[in-house]
This record gives sequence, structure tokens and C-alpha cells, in this order.
Amino acid sequence: MQIAIVLFDRFTALDAVGPYETLGRLPGSETVFVAEQAGPIRTDTGNLAITADKTLAEVTNPDIVVVPGGPGQTPQMDNEVLLDWLRAADTTSTWTTSVCTGSLLLAAAGLLQGRRATSHWLALDHLKNFGAEPTGERVVTDGKYVTAAGVSSGIDMGLTLLGRIAGDEQAQAVQLLTEYDPQPPYDAGSPQKAPAHLVERFRADSRFSVA
Amino acid sequence: MQIAIVLFDRFTALDAVGPYETLGRLPGSETVFVAEQAGPIRTDTGNLAITADKTLAEVTNPDIVVVPGGPGQTPQMDNEVLLDWLRAADTTSTWTTSVCTGSLLLAAAGLLQGRRATSHWLALDHLKNFGAEPTGERVVTDGKYVTAAGVSSGIDMGLTLLGRIAGDEQAQAVQLLTEYDPQPPYDAGSPQKAPAHLVERFRADSRFSVA
Repeated sequence: MQIAIVLFDRFTALDAVGPYETLGRLPGSETVFVAEQAGPIRTDTGNLAITADKTLAEVTNPDIVVVPGGPGQTPQMDNEVLLDWLRAADTTSTWTTSVCTGSLLLAAAGLLQGRRATSHWLALDHLKNFGAEPTGERVVTDGKYVTAAGVSSGIDMGLTLLGRIAGDEQAQAVQLLTEYDPQPPYDAGSPQKAPAHLVERFRADSRFSVA
Repeated sequence: MQIAIVLFDRFTALDAVGPYETLGRLPGSETVFVAEQAGPIRTDTGNLAITADKTLAEVTNPDIVVVPGGPGQTPQMDNEVLLDWLRAADTTSTWTTSVCTGSLLLAAAGLLQGRRATSHWLALDHLKNFGAEPTGERVVTDGKYVTAAGVSSGIDMGLTLLGRIAGDEQAQAVQLLTEYDPQPPYDAGSPQKAPAHLVERFRADSRFSVA
């Protein structure tokens, strides 16, 4: 089973690495990082590069597609090479998934029409522009489409899908080996829980606006 | 403030990316991925490569050192180039940190002598061999040494240290932006919580033994 994780300039690293480290432990699977051009692809901070080992053109029939998000998602919304690849890969995929604003790319490709989906909390409403029905859940499964909320939620998505495909015990084994027993030092991980002034600050900051 | 994240062959990706995505959002900081040789460094699965942008020799005075773990930690225990670099960097660092079995590398460099520390649950006892006092906590701070438990705990460590350096609000802002509101689909993230037969299986499996 081939898992293709899509990279593009200024993606958010954890969006991609969360599913890689969990779902990517699926027995008998092979994970491949793909991008329009092969080679190192820089994240949103510019301080990290992950290698795309194959081009989109080289990976034509992945079983599972994972699309991360990040500030670099916006310019990709008009990238027909990527959107065409997503549409084509989706015709044969078993699961088509996203983390964070990656769901907007699936939506822009027309794949979430009429489906329940999620995204980063700052981007959630934009799903409506593409006929998707946004929900505030952390991991949303609708048919073969699995979307996750912001950044770190890809870990929960990866474990959820791993359990669905390989069984609860396999997912529990990966949770144990990655020691995923979260103990955040604060309880500010969602707009419902964080201090209201922080939520408002980011909603008002154009650097965080999503289109 | 410079944050140096150390890479070596067969490290575990999330060990490095968790702190990068949290602590690396420290205002005014620059994160640099370093390794003995610059270039792409492969993770334990072989399916992911992160670029080391600088060599160890090029980064001589980092303010914060982050050492990930992974199966590749074992051969590094005798790598005097790396151990010497850790010792030298530690003489000027403000914080010296690790995730997972990265703490064994700090310990092998002699930096955790007489200190409380943690590691991946499968490796915890080995800390004693280097004069450190293992604890089962997820994030352990002893002086300027901050060690985290297995793999995903680097996210909690990163937020904890970010709060300590930049204040609670900054850490809460990063938690909100990374939407770190964990909802694991299982409760199997520690040896105390996971099914006992899984814990025993991994303890008995030589592929998971750590030295």
C-alpha cells in the first residue's frame, strides 16, 4: 500500500510529519513524499526542508493521499498541476486525506463537494466556498475522505485511520511506541479553550488570513 | 537566539519536528538543523529526509540544543565527533534538551551526571548507566537540562520551554496556532495505559532494545 504525502513550498512541517509518523507505520505500506519537482521543499519558517523523493508525475496510483497545509497552501489553490494530480489520484485512492488547510486544496480540486470536512480553525469557513460542510471536529471522516483540523491534529488523524485500516491493536502499538500520551502544559489548543484575546488577535491579523 | 536541532542517520522525525514546530516559534529565534555532514539525513523508516543546513563544525555557539532520538541513536553513542560537539555546545548553551533516546546521547556525553532526566519508556533504565536519575515524567527540567519522553513528547517539551523563555501567552499562542488540543482515538500512549501484552511484546523484541 502506497501512502503519498504531498509537499509544496511553505507547507507546515508537523502537518506532514504527524501522519507520516503514525499512519506511515501501517504494516506493508511505503510512504513517499511527492512534490511538483523532486528535491528539498522548504517549510513555512524557511528553517526546515523535507526532501520530495518523487515528482507528482512519478506517483500516479497512491492508495492513500495525504495533503498537508500551511501558509503555502494559498498559492497552490490555483496550481492546476497539483489540483489535476489530486483529482487523478483520487479516482483510484482508497483514502484521500488532509491536515490543516490541506483540506482547502482537496476542496479546490472539487473533492469535498457536499461532504463534511474540517480544516485549521482560522480556515474552517472557507470550506463552504467549495461546497463542503465545515465541522469543528478534530478528525472528520466522510466516505473515503478524512480531514483533520490544524497542524498537530494530523497525529490523531493518522492514528484514527491506522486503526480503521489495520485494527485497534496496531494503532495502539504505534501510539505506545510514539509515546503519544499528550500532556500539554496549557489548555489553549482550540479557539474555544484559548484566551479570547489571542483568538481575536489571530482572526484580525491579515498574515493569518486564508483564501 | 539560535536553536540547533541535531540530526543523524535514522533519527525519528517527530522527535525533531515537535520541538521545531513549537519551541522554534520563539520570537527572534532562528532554528538550524545540523549534522556531522550537511545535506539530507534519512529517518528511521528511510522514507523521509530532512536537510541538515549546516555542519556541526559550523554551529559552535547555539543558545538552545535539541537532540532527538530514534534507532540511529545507538551507533552515535560512540561517535566522539558528536559527543565532543555536545560537550562544547553545552558549555555556552542556555538550554540543553533532548527528546526520546536523545537523552542517552546527552548522558553519554556526560551531561546528565547526577541529574533527573527522562527518555523513551523502553530506554529509561539505560540513563542509570551514565549516572542520571530516570523519572517517568513526560518532560523533566533539571537546571538548564530539559529532557522529554518518547517521540511525541517533544511537542509538550517545546511548549513547556517556550513558555518558560517567552512567557505563558506566547506558548498559548503557539498551542492555538498548531491547534494542539489532542484527542487520541485510543488511550495507549504510555506503558501504564497501553494493553499489557503490547508493552511486554516491545520489551521482549530485540529490535527495540536500546544500548
